[in-house]
Amino acid sequence: MRTSRLEAFSDGVLAIIITIMVLELKVPAGHRLTDLVHTTGVGLLTYLLSFVYVGIYWNNHHHMFHLVRRIRGGVLWANLALLFCLSLFPFTTAWMNDSRFEPTPVVIYGVNLLSAAVAYFVLQTVIIRQQGPESPLRQAVGIDVKGKISPPFYLAGILSALMIDRSGWAGVGIALACYVGVAIMWIIPDRRIDRVFRQYEAQD
Amino acid sequence: MRTSRLEAFSDGVLAIIITIMVLELKVPAGHRLTDLVHTTGVGLLTYLLSFVYVGIYWNNHHHMFHLVRRIRGGVLWANLALLFCLSLFPFTTAWMNDSRFEPTPVVIYGVNLLSAAVAYFVLQTVIIRQQGPESPLRQAVGIDVKGKISPPFYLAGILSALMIDRSGWAGVGIALACYVGVAIMWIIPDRRIDRVFRQYEAQD
Amino acid sequence: MRTSRLEAFSDGVLAIIITIMVLELKVPAGHRLTDLVHTTGVGLLTYLLSFVYVGIYWNNHHHMFHLVRRIRGGVLWANLALLFCLSLFPFTTAWMNDSRFEPTPVVIYGVNLLSAAVAYFVLQTVIIRQQGPESPLRQAVGIDVKGKISPPFYLAGILSALMIDRSGWAGVGIALACYVGVAIMWIIPDRRIDRVFRQYEAQD
Amino acid sequence: MRTSRLEAFSDGVLAIIITIMVLELKVPAGHRLTDLVHTTGVGLLTYLLSFVYVGIYWNNHHHMFHLVRRIRGGVLWANLALLFCLSLFPFTTAWMNDSRFEPTPVVIYGVNLLSAAVAYFVLQTVIIRQQGPESPLRQAVGIDVKGKISPPFYLAGILSALMIDRSGWAGVGIALACYVGVAIMWIIPDRRIDRVFRQYEAQD
Repeated sequence: MRTSRLEAFSDGVLAIIITIMVLELKVPAGHRLTDLVHTTGVGLLTYLLSFVYVGIYWNNHHHMFHLVRRIRGGVLWANLALLFCLSLFPFTTAWMNDSRFEPTPVVIYGVNLLSAAVAYFVLQTVIIRQQGPESPLRQAVGIDVKGKISPPFYLAGILSALMIDRSGWAGVGIALACYVGVAIMWIIPDRRIDRVFRQYEAQD
Repeated sequence: MRTSRLEAFSDGVLAIIITIMVLELKVPAGHRLTDLVHTTGVGLLTYLLSFVYVGIYWNNHHHMFHLVRRIRGGVLWANLALLFCLSLFPFTTAWMNDSRFEPTPVVIYGVNLLSAAVAYFVLQTVIIRQQGPESPLRQAVGIDVKGKISPPFYLAGILSALMIDRSGWAGVGIALACYVGVAIMWIIPDRRIDRVFRQYEAQD
Repeated sequence: MRTSRLEAFSDGVLAIIITIMVLELKVPAGHRLTDLVHTTGVGLLTYLLSFVYVGIYWNNHHHMFHLVRRIRGGVLWANLALLFCLSLFPFTTAWMNDSRFEPTPVVIYGVNLLSAAVAYFVLQTVIIRQQGPESPLRQAVGIDVKGKISPPFYLAGILSALMIDRSGWAGVGIALACYVGVAIMWIIPDRRIDRVFRQYEAQD
Repeated sequence: MRTSRLEAFSDGVLAIIITIMVLELKVPAGHRLTDLVHTTGVGLLTYLLSFVYVGIYWNNHHHMFHLVRRIRGGVLWANLALLFCLSLFPFTTAWMNDSRFEPTPVVIYGVNLLSAAVAYFVLQTVIIRQQGPESPLRQAVGIDVKGKISPPFYLAGILSALMIDRSGWAGVGIALACYVGVAIMWIIPDRRIDRVFRQYEAQD
């Protein structure tokens, strides 16, 4: 089976996830700039963070399936599992905002990030296994520094929000720094994948 | 008429259905883990169930139209009837959750599952009839064990929620077990279809 | 410019319109069948009517652009005008339901149907003009019985809801009968278009 | 990397943005024409304005990527930045409506328009730089009168809403006239781009 319709369906789901989060932004009751900052300010920043994360997953998904020619059943379900994890972002983002960054919602947001990373890794592994020993995806992924670094950072964020100074801001601050830091790391272009990718294209 | 735009439209509708269900998840008013479990816990599980069902239909729809080259008017309307049934999932899921699994909403959810199964069967039949005696879809479907088993299970669920122990949990428990069981059955890969499918591809 | 991306965008918008209407269905507060019928019954029927209308427009749009190879600027804007009219369906449907079929909302729903029909006609005319004297779309449309009959029926519905027996049900009943009747007329397949269409395909 | 999936994803996001704005239209509580005009009248006009703006961006995006064959990482992020700015339209439109055109929300709407224009310009610049000295996009854009005129007009609107007659309507009126005027300017077809575009197609 070709990948075109799976890509189209995933694009559709990701486009909807990235867009409906804006429906969670609360319109201020007042009409001054302070009302906007107070009601929506923090929500806008977390919306931006979740938007960037969905963008990163779309970007990586796009690159990954460019190296896939044919798929079988397992990939469909691994892909749906990834989409399910990502579809919870609007919910976990909304709870984190509504609570004004209480530790538990910040932890749950981190768990959501972690579950999406795990689902992405599972999807990647299923594809590599189906492609066999000559898998172009395995070559492109290589040692996968970013993929290996991200989950420990999410975990560090989750643990610091869980344990450090639950009545203050230190733990939550460290957690948010971890989540933002991983996002920034992914935006920086990955020349290694690009190189293997271009070789594969050239052979093709 | 080619099937590409019908597939694109169906993908769009299914992507939206599968994603907007997350908008029905209620954000907890409190910010503790118990608030999350109490407000959203059950909703998350039924969201997962409906997500899996829409995923199953997308998967089957995808396989089915891979064996279809050209379509005529009747298929468009049979396809829209299927999409209509599936578009009610967010609504019936929300009612089942809001009622905390009262018998009637559980019955209506089952009726929704049953109606989607019937609509899918009608769509399949219309396509097979248009393809004529050499229909590749008929060969792929074969004796269609899963398709034949599912409606009786939905019916059994509906009847047990309707009739067994309406003041207790027995009937509803059996009904939910039926709905979950059918979903699990569909996730298990169907080697028979895959085999015919590959033969068809090879001839092509 | 080719039509593929215009079709993809229109498909996306139509898929969203047809699906978000289900978000307007109110989940019953109670959990009995009578609550469902009372809260959602009428809403479900009008949802079905609007779903069918969007389905008809998707179907016709699909057929129309199958006969179009290249487009210029005017078509893009005429297409957006049609999508704008159709995007108001969720709103006018919701108002008609909320009011329980008061005359004015029924009139506005009819005005929405009429405006979509006019926008579709304008789009068709712009395309035919761009295609020039040998326009395959003009041949396919022919005398266009359905397209010519629909607006008078919408107008009849609008006028009867406006004028007949505003304290009773007669006028609204006639209006709804007109709206449902036109929808049924469009579902019946149009062999004339199909015939010209197949000739065009054969030449191609 | 080819542009097809980036275009499909952008189409999906734009289709959702343009459609979910209708969910912000408030259904009147009463059921008379005056209720409709009072509750929804102004909202309908601003919905139309934002609909036209998203339509303009879709249109320009469509033309731009028609002149792009291959893209690299930077374009993906510049494109996501544009989609982020556009995804805020439902929110800024809703606030402007809810406030009944108080100066601050009108300013914020203008800032949103301006940010989208800047993001579009950045995307265009990134693509032109990647295409190198023979960039077909640079030739098509040419001196780009519309693109250069729009930001000053947005700025003029923002400043007049900020400064002129904050207790009256003059400043807001000028601002809205600027926003509407730029939209009308973009709807008028741009023969210059069309000409270069057709030359490029002919060479191809």
